[in-house]
Amino acid sequence: DPNLKIFSLNSNHKLAEEIAKVVGVELGKCSVTRFSDGEIQINIEESIRGCDVYVVQPTSAPVNESLMELLIMIDALKRASAKTINIVMPYYGYARQDRKARAREPITAKLVANLIETAGATRVITLDLHAPQIQGFFDIPIDHLMGVPILADYFKKKNFNDEIVIVSPDHGGVTRARKMAERLKAPIAIIDKRRPRPNVAEVMNIVGNIEGKIAILIDDIIDTAGTITLAANALVENGAKEVYASCTHPVLSGPAIERIDNSKIKELVVTNSIALAEEKKSDKVVELSIAPLLGEAIIRVHEELSVSTLFD
Amino acid sequence: DPNLKIFSLNSNHKLAEEIAKVVGVELGKCSVTRFSDGEIQINIEESIRGCDVYVVQPTSAPVNESLMELLIMIDALKRASAKTINIVMPYYGYARQDRKARAREPITAKLVANLIETAGATRVITLDLHAPQIQGFFDIPIDHLMGVPILADYFKKKNFNDEIVIVSPDHGGVTRARKMAERLKAPIAIIDKRRPRPNVAEVMNIVGNIEGKIAILIDDIIDTAGTITLAANALVENGAKEVYASCTHPVLSGPAIERIDNSKIKELVVTNSIALAEEKKSDKVVELSIAPLLGEAIIRVHEELSVSTLFD
Ligand SMILES: Nc1ncnc2c1ncn2[C@@H]1O[C@H](COP(=O)(O)O)[C@@H](O)[C@H]1O
Ligand SMILES: Nc1ncnc2c1ncn2[C@@H]1O[C@H](COP(=O)(O)O)[C@@H](O)[C@H]1O
Repeated sequence: DPNLKIFSLNSNHKLAEEIAKVVGVELGKCSVTRFSDGEIQINIEESIRGCDVYVVQPTSAPVNESLMELLIMIDALKRASAKTINIVMPYYGYARQDRKARAREPITAKLVANLIETAGATRVITLDLHAPQIQGFFDIPIDHLMGVPILADYFKKKNFNDEIVIVSPDHGGVTRARKMAERLKAPIAIIDKRRPRPNVAEVMNIVGNIEGKIAILIDDIIDTAGTITLAANALVENGAKEVYASCTHPVLSGPAIERIDNSKIKELVVTNSIALAEEKKSDKVVELSIAPLLGEAIIRVHEELSVSTLFD
Repeated sequence: DPNLKIFSLNSNHKLAEEIAKVVGVELGKCSVTRFSDGEIQINIEESIRGCDVYVVQPTSAPVNESLMELLIMIDALKRASAKTINIVMPYYGYARQDRKARAREPITAKLVANLIETAGATRVITLDLHAPQIQGFFDIPIDHLMGVPILADYFKKKNFNDEIVIVSPDHGGVTRARKMAERLKAPIAIIDKRRPRPNVAEVMNIVGNIEGKIAILIDDIIDTAGTITLAANALVENGAKEVYASCTHPVLSGPAIERIDNSKIKELVVTNSIALAEEKKSDKVVELSIAPLLGEAIIRVHEELSVSTLFD
């Protein structure tokens, strides 16, 4: 369909290429550069009048650059008479600032939703939001996809000979671990971090049976990798045979890769929702593509079919 | 008045300090830092409930960081029940993207206005917009101040013995040059850049009498300094005795400082609307403070007096 156009900005060009291939179109021509003073300059180099446009741009680091590229692109598309402007942002930057935890904090995840709508987006397609409530921050349709099936499939294909157990690194992640466990027909365990008294080191208590098993940790985001590496080491100390870790969004900032390389984690399985910078690559990190999932979602949205069967 | 609070974000802390001094208050306490992954974290460390809050943040380079800091701060202030949220942004980033010069271009200056309003600002105080029409991009009150009087005063105090002439580096700047000339009781001249035929170098034709005079170039923004240094050299070649250059906003990106140092410009006189990074300092650059102007504007806005007498 010549009215379906997919554009890539700068944050994950490789993913956009893969998605375009799945959908069966060429990426739209546009250039996203910088003026001498650092201001973003966007040129859309083909007509998009009356088209359904999909913009692939996870708002990962550098998050403020990624977000401003996205907003400026939306503005340009709107003024160029796009029929619909659909934002494919598998990683939603600022998702962790989704509530006032303290007085006088911003709720940046809601601000970002408002900015995207104000710029002129008509739909958002995203993946594993840090909190599913962020869907409600939008007044436009939002399709919320899940990475668990992709991660689960990878482990299923390993055909482990030992028993496996899916481990949530904290209480917030139990629902996700449960979904993974159902797909792998495995039990779950939970890491219960507690500080016995103020100013005393946290204790990693493991709820559930992991002894002699292959433990698969699952989280939505792995950022500095502090939690996940401590959890992995605690699992091994408590008798797990091997520990794998997995997440949808490999933020991997600061000491993350060093911590993972030095941890008891055997493999870290992630998706390409965020492009892995060269310096973040490690022999332990396995990257799975979400392009088939996102491509299928675009096709269904474009054909006005339900996307909900892709949800899990 | 304890209900008047001034906060500074990261783009020009020194200017904010000076403004607070003029107004006679301490800067409000807040911290604007980054999480490990580069996301902005803002903490407002004192109550601002029911207050008139002024946020000092020119959106200069790194422009996308500066703008996002501003938007997130506005969101936090709004949620913390500020009575009014007044943005003091003497430099307005993206002002040069103020119209569609070609098909499918964004109008980022308008997008920025929409973003600031969506975040929750109730007023904007700014200085020498690249195009005064940008005032109309806002639906909230905007006070548009002028830098010319500050620049003109500096040259007046020099008490030149020779005749002076105020020079606009292009046709777009004639109104500004005219204002400067009136204050200095001097005539004006205009650099008329023309390309005689395609693919032939531009010719710098000077309209007006500059021979034997001290020429003072004036512009709103000096960015890469290409135009201004070529103009200065043309003025000297055509008989000007000395050439000064002046502008409100010293963007000075890329080769700017090198070009200025190697040019016939004797002094470049700028305001502190944009903080000059260490590597942009040069013996030729003279910085004048706009803190008295902005401080006075804040006092008048707060007392609900007219700001218009400050306009020129
Ligand atoms: N980019 C970030 N990096 C690290 N922590 C963050 C970030 N954004 C928000 N937070 C913090 O993470 C917490 C929310 O995470 P959670 O409790 O897992 O929902 C809040 O206390 C935030 O202050
Ligand atoms: N940050 C920037 N640096 C250099 N040129 C720019 C910038 N932003 C916009 N422009 C260009 O400057 C022109 C507008 O400047 P002007 O004609 O002086 O109003 C447009 O052609 C823009 O493409």
